[in-house]
Amino acid sequence: MEVFHYTDVEAKDAEEGASKLTVRWLITKKMGAENFAMRLFEMIAGGYSPFHSHPWEHEVFILEGEGLAISEEGQKKFRAGDVIFIPQNSKHQLKNDGEKTVRFLCLVPYTNDERPGQHLELRQKKNSANV
Amino acid sequence: MEVFHYTDVEAKDAEEGASKLTVRWLITKKMGAENFAMRLFEMIAGGYSPFHSHPWEHEVFILEGEGLAISEEGQKKFRAGDVIFIPQNSKHQLKNDGEKTVRFLCLVPYTNDERPGQHLELRQKKNSANV
Repeated sequence: MEVFHYTDVEAKDAEEGASKLTVRWLITKKMGAENFAMRLFEMIAGGYSPFHSHPWEHEVFILEGEGLAISEEGQKKFRAGDVIFIPQNSKHQLKNDGEKTVRFLCLVPYTNDERPGQHLELRQKKNSANV
Repeated sequence: MEVFHYTDVEAKDAEEGASKLTVRWLITKKMGAENFAMRLFEMIAGGYSPFHSHPWEHEVFILEGEGLAISEEGQKKFRAGDVIFIPQNSKHQLKNDGEKTVRFLCLVPYTNDERPGQHLELRQKKNSANV
């Protein structure tokens, strides 16, 4: 069993196409988590993730702050305590339109890719991530 | 895309062997999450989960409060912002030894069982859950 504070894990710049967004890979395959990864993102005021889609889902929990969750159907406001489920292959973007930093967990499976987990491991090596 | 507050989901008593512990199943297969489920637990002062093991891992994030994470190697203190990874088949228990309610996310895969997801669906029907 591992117990550690999220700030013990280094924050790295998130993926290309994102702005003012960092990611900490908290629980990964390296730790023995074979099925899904837990990441914590920090998005400062004005930050955003790219508007994109991919063949894996996101399970998101908003820890702090507020912003907009955007999909092809429109946009919804989010705030601390909100849960966001983004299905596979569904276009999405998160934006911080508030004044405080948004902190959120975003979990992704090590499956549903041509080679399970490959997209995650490759991006980890490049110090980038999928939001 | 789904956006909702965690309190929009009903809290139910957690599994047998637990005390002062409720669970909200936030993201499940029913919503289209095929790989893993997101649950939010609330453990009031003095509460605990059973000391047990099972063939699926837990990915835990402590949202509020403090307590003890117990394994066969001993116990570790946890507090808000802590991450806990409990590997498959590893005995574990969480206890609230503080005065405030502990709130935590605990995510579990829909795999690594004799019949993937079966343990979760059966327990959901019985209004109980695995911590």
